[in-house]
Amino acid sequence: MNMNNPYQTTMHIHPVGTVSSPIKDLSLKAGESGLERQENDGEIRENHQRIKETVCDLVIAKEWQELLDGIEEFSHALVLYWPHLLDTDRRRIKKVHPMGRKDLPLTGIFATRSPARPNPILVSVVKIVEREKNILRVVGLEAVDGSPVLDIKPHVKSYDTLENPKLAPWMEQIQRELEGEDVK
Amino acid sequence: MNMNNPYQTTMHIHPVGTVSSPIKDLSLKAGESGLERQENDGEIRENHQRIKETVCDLVIAKEWQELLDGIEEFSHALVLYWPHLLDTDRRRIKKVHPMGRKDLPLTGIFATRSPARPNPILVSVVKIVEREKNILRVVGLEAVDGSPVLDIKPHVKSYDTLENPKLAPWMEQIQRELEGEDVK
Repeated sequence: MNMNNPYQTTMHIHPVGTVSSPIKDLSLKAGESGLERQENDGEIRENHQRIKETVCDLVIAKEWQELLDGIEEFSHALVLYWPHLLDTDRRRIKKVHPMGRKDLPLTGIFATRSPARPNPILVSVVKIVEREKNILRVVGLEAVDGSPVLDIKPHVKSYDTLENPKLAPWMEQIQRELEGEDVK
Repeated sequence: MNMNNPYQTTMHIHPVGTVSSPIKDLSLKAGESGLERQENDGEIRENHQRIKETVCDLVIAKEWQELLDGIEEFSHALVLYWPHLLDTDRRRIKKVHPMGRKDLPLTGIFATRSPARPNPILVSVVKIVEREKNILRVVGLEAVDGSPVLDIKPHVKSYDTLENPKLAPWMEQIQRELEGEDVK
């Protein structure tokens, strides 16, 4: 690492597997000024529900297969993956209207879950269905087919879970709209 | 991306900031056969508590400063960082005894939270204390001083939190030992 200017250091990472999913595209894509909305509210809500229920396979490279040994004993995992459809120049976007909605405030990327970020490493919590050799079947992964998998970690409540995290008002609003009355 | 063999693709990532922390080393380091225990149980528990209460600063590169705008409205964030003290050849370790403990089962890396993994991108949930220009002050980051910061995301309950994740018995055991009677 370049200790004089650590920000100019480059780290190299490599896919350990690939997502095999019926989801071929997402309802949102990174646009000029952030994310653009391509569908109306109803469709977005439907899409969100569909993703939460979708079963997909993480197909791990044979050389890394045994790294999955023991994952069956956990119910949930964090999956780190790369949004390979994102254009490289979108990594320089600094602010977006969340979900491309002009009614929500222009917000710094680090305060959003936008896929367009300097290091587009996305984190998703999934439910583990089963593991068969080099394939881990999961539910709830918000990644399109073909996305490179970077890492899998067991979800551990005391590391990853919080009682009552406070959200920005715009995020509360999105949550209410996506989930309906279930979300407080 | 090399679509014929996606596993041979290389992605490039760059630090967006650096951790400034009073924690100069960790009680565990990656050893020949995984993680070795350097201290006794009492010290490990004390160290764990110390990390949970430690305040540290994420010093973000000036060019990325405005990406933090809006983070103050959230109480917690996910921090993605790189364990820069980890030897590069440790990225090829396939199994470890969790925390270097021979009494716990030899387990695939993807079923552990070991820092020694093919893509050593670590994820930690932190409490946000304050933001001052390019500095985000947080509590609970399990990273040593000088660790490169890769990404910051707001913690959103419906994305990141689960009601009752099931853990492997060995992880339940570690949780009980670290936390005492508070953990069920």
